[in-house]
Amino acid sequence: MLKLYSYFRSSASFRVRIALNLKGLPYEYAPVHLLRGGGEQHLTAYRLVNAQGIVPSLQENDLTLTQSLAIIEYLDEMYPERPLLPKGALDRARVRAVALAIACEIHPLNNLRVLNYLKNVLNLDQTACDAWYRHWIAEGLASVETMLLDDPRTVRFCHGDTPSLADCFLVPQIFNAQRFNCPLDMAPTVMRVFETCMSLPEFQRAAPMLQPDAEK
Amino acid sequence: MLKLYSYFRSSASFRVRIALNLKGLPYEYAPVHLLRGGGEQHLTAYRLVNAQGIVPSLQENDLTLTQSLAIIEYLDEMYPERPLLPKGALDRARVRAVALAIACEIHPLNNLRVLNYLKNVLNLDQTACDAWYRHWIAEGLASVETMLLDDPRTVRFCHGDTPSLADCFLVPQIFNAQRFNCPLDMAPTVMRVFETCMSLPEFQRAAPMLQPDAEK
Repeated sequence: MLKLYSYFRSSASFRVRIALNLKGLPYEYAPVHLLRGGGEQHLTAYRLVNAQGIVPSLQENDLTLTQSLAIIEYLDEMYPERPLLPKGALDRARVRAVALAIACEIHPLNNLRVLNYLKNVLNLDQTACDAWYRHWIAEGLASVETMLLDDPRTVRFCHGDTPSLADCFLVPQIFNAQRFNCPLDMAPTVMRVFETCMSLPEFQRAAPMLQPDAEK
Repeated sequence: MLKLYSYFRSSASFRVRIALNLKGLPYEYAPVHLLRGGGEQHLTAYRLVNAQGIVPSLQENDLTLTQSLAIIEYLDEMYPERPLLPKGALDRARVRAVALAIACEIHPLNNLRVLNYLKNVLNLDQTACDAWYRHWIAEGLASVETMLLDDPRTVRFCHGDTPSLADCFLVPQIFNAQRFNCPLDMAPTVMRVFETCMSLPEFQRAAPMLQPDAEK
């Protein structure tokens, strides 16, 4: 049985929830509240699962996997039905590059511990924090837009006519952007793919507000 | 023929140089100066190669690949000799997780455009910029240290007795840490693996100061 340690708002957790749904794999949901009591991810009980103290972690039997991209690649290797990566090496590289353009160029700059550093160490006010957030979203999504727009392999989804690993990364990033009221009109291809994804139940069911630990 | 668009100090470029050397693949070195004239990566000539305007890019025939991890996975799929990923899915996930703990948790916070934002937009002085840099190195490497220390699969290298994709990521990050005089004594396992890697010519030849575009 698969067990996912997740926080409803964590976009890295969201990526893995989408992948699990696309694969049709049932899993147990283990909530880890990133804010309550200084962050449950830092508690010893969770550190025994994931020494890094970050979500998500995926447990299969007694083994723990970390890092959303590594987890999704693992799922794709172990459960090859409904593949999340295309067959050819060049196409696989392209799908991974889109995912990494989000995972390495956008998300790390806007996660909780970075925002905490901006507020608590650099003493930035909310306006400056929001400007930071929107700057990296705008720059990063413009870059992803170019990757998608310029390539005929972008069809209904980031790559072709079926969802791939890249879509698992794109959708949570757009949720974050919307939550912080970031302008998204400069990324029409990204948004078209996002809407297509969100028409599917596998993406819908993975959304933050539908998770057992969701809060208003 | 493979052609690598690279900047000697770019640690993402450094990762790919190591992988190419470990695979024994010759390549043409195309320098892209990230500082000169506002950054050659932004010039139209380079944007035609890589629309995102970042290094590295790898060209094979007329095809361009971006994102260091996607490039290295591609090389490993196309040139399977001297594999950079182990055979089993669990082991592969572990190697990728170590690489991603560096690629997603440390490096994105300390790259050139982030440091430029800290200086030019947030008006941080050098002391505050250095503290930022060292904070994410210290936190991130402590995490990588835990991943390596707690796992019997760490042997001479991050995973086993031969270099893997994880080592391609670890070594450039340590070069960066040393350049900014970050303390590294809290990560003895990381440093032991680093020293082992640096005893090999494939890693040595990839070092920044040995590249054709190196500057003092």
